[in-house]
Amino acid sequence: MDFNIAFIGFGVVGQGLAEILVEQEQYLKEKYDFNFKVVAISDTIKGSWYRRTGLDLKKLLELVKETGSLKGYADGIEGWDSLKTIKDTNANIILEVAWTDLKTGEPAITHVKTALKLKKHVVMTNKGPIALAVRELLDLAKKNDVEMRYEGTVLSGTPALNLGLYNLAGSGITKAKGIVNGTTNYILTEMEGGLGYEDALKQAQELGYAEADPTADVEGHDALGKIVILANTVMGANLSKDEPPCEGITKITAEDIIKAKEEGFRWKLIAGAELKDDGSVEAYVRPEKIPLDHPLANIMGPTNALTYTTKYLGDVTIIGPGAGKAPTGFALLADILDINRVLKD
Amino acid sequence: MDFNIAFIGFGVVGQGLAEILVEQEQYLKEKYDFNFKVVAISDTIKGSWYRRTGLDLKKLLELVKETGSLKGYADGIEGWDSLKTIKDTNANIILEVAWTDLKTGEPAITHVKTALKLKKHVVMTNKGPIALAVRELLDLAKKNDVEMRYEGTVLSGTPALNLGLYNLAGSGITKAKGIVNGTTNYILTEMEGGLGYEDALKQAQELGYAEADPTADVEGHDALGKIVILANTVMGANLSKDEPPCEGITKITAEDIIKAKEEGFRWKLIAGAELKDDGSVEAYVRPEKIPLDHPLANIMGPTNALTYTTKYLGDVTIIGPGAGKAPTGFALLADILDINRVLKD
Repeated sequence: MDFNIAFIGFGVVGQGLAEILVEQEQYLKEKYDFNFKVVAISDTIKGSWYRRTGLDLKKLLELVKETGSLKGYADGIEGWDSLKTIKDTNANIILEVAWTDLKTGEPAITHVKTALKLKKHVVMTNKGPIALAVRELLDLAKKNDVEMRYEGTVLSGTPALNLGLYNLAGSGITKAKGIVNGTTNYILTEMEGGLGYEDALKQAQELGYAEADPTADVEGHDALGKIVILANTVMGANLSKDEPPCEGITKITAEDIIKAKEEGFRWKLIAGAELKDDGSVEAYVRPEKIPLDHPLANIMGPTNALTYTTKYLGDVTIIGPGAGKAPTGFALLADILDINRVLKD
Repeated sequence: MDFNIAFIGFGVVGQGLAEILVEQEQYLKEKYDFNFKVVAISDTIKGSWYRRTGLDLKKLLELVKETGSLKGYADGIEGWDSLKTIKDTNANIILEVAWTDLKTGEPAITHVKTALKLKKHVVMTNKGPIALAVRELLDLAKKNDVEMRYEGTVLSGTPALNLGLYNLAGSGITKAKGIVNGTTNYILTEMEGGLGYEDALKQAQELGYAEADPTADVEGHDALGKIVILANTVMGANLSKDEPPCEGITKITAEDIIKAKEEGFRWKLIAGAELKDDGSVEAYVRPEKIPLDHPLANIMGPTNALTYTTKYLGDVTIIGPGAGKAPTGFALLADILDINRVLKD
């Protein structure tokens, strides 16, 4: 099919994808037979444009970089809000990259539902709808015979989710376990290098890895959200996002780290999900001492990793970035190209 | 589509897949909407059966385990050779798991060509056709509008190839580098543990990791074949399989290994392929000293790993088994399920 893309939201992630699309348009067309136009961008702050025959994405990117706004662009229809953009444009694929609200999932859940009901494909990096309503949304997509994808909600563009959903289909996944939060892994790495917890956190904040309020990272909530998404979508669980036990890294001291290393271990914040004999799935986030010869022990700094334990392949581990503009923008592209592949006929 | 499967060859790999299919039939049907019958098995030594409405795979597996032969089965047409099985059965997907000949690629190349020309999908773990004729065969598949897959030719069921071909499509892969031969990695691991090269090799032979004639492994030829497949299919190269420089592990001494470790490195047999500025791809196999904090340095024993360096994601590494009955059997299943997914409508 020919993709008519609408961006709902045009922040870091949306711009990350837009940059890749501008750079790679010709290559993607030739190599993957991927034909697209960006027909609409709707951002509550930066402004909105719609043009049926395609916007000039390069110009819009330059504009937003220079002025922080799309307002100076002048070709097409201006000012449609997100819902009107989803409903009334000729877009056939909606990229939900507006802001994340993990309490209500809104307005993203409404965006996604509206699009699916209109038989438009949806790709998102927004964790809200997936953490809160994934099953309902997947059913809605199926009922309307369209695709809904969300690789970027777990390890940004590192294909941890699609690996479990597609490449390892039929392998008999019994466990998923990994380092899915780069901020805490960076802090633990720096603490091993000699910094105290407070100094390591401060450094992570200075580098932009940690928020001013680091609670979601250091208490494990971010990691928990991701493992719940994995458990629910890859392992067939039905966990609510605050249900599993969750412990962060705030109680780990420099002494703990040194002592573990002397014993041949390394403390890591581990998110895990395990299939039990009765068919239920138990998930958790907690610090674990990992043997130094285990692949997860050697994941340092902001890098993420996930190990699937399977019946037929044993352990399969994937390692890559867990955040960032280009990696998360790429997550959208990976999902779109996969949709292009499965719908190619 | 409904899959009518024919096995061409029924050795370890074919039986590996058959065991999974018998165990998982119901699950695969429910979870992935994958409907199949095995309509034919043709093995030059064990015998051949064809039954239009489906063979009893469980019974055939039991028989071959008990007697080493399929001859005692008695339901359907007996004795069709591989080409007649490809041509004259109602199979619509051919699994090429006959023996590998890396000099001529035959008879596998003829099997694959015959199937593709008859518009039958092909999945294989046989390196011969891919190492010698991949481009011609892919063109033939495209011309006939059928799928040809070969995940199992690189790291058995660890999805290294499909990761590069599909999940990382559009990521801008500039390099692939990894440990793609388990035998040599096992030997190097044991040498670090204190064994000399000869003793480590002997141990690998006793455990079935190394052949009686270990040349293909220890001289790097097996690794070279795999990196050439990766370079040619993922990175668009057009290398012949004996072209790139290739050095094995036979010159590495126990002293080299100890000395490297003291300096913070570990010797690994590395297969690599790199995209050059002029668009060409250079591949090689050679021992390299890898820094201990690099993911590849910590791949021990018979495990395999591959790191893709990409423009938008940085490094993405996958780690998993590189051989074995179930992992290689699973490689076939993964490819078949992907075909089921892309052809689902």
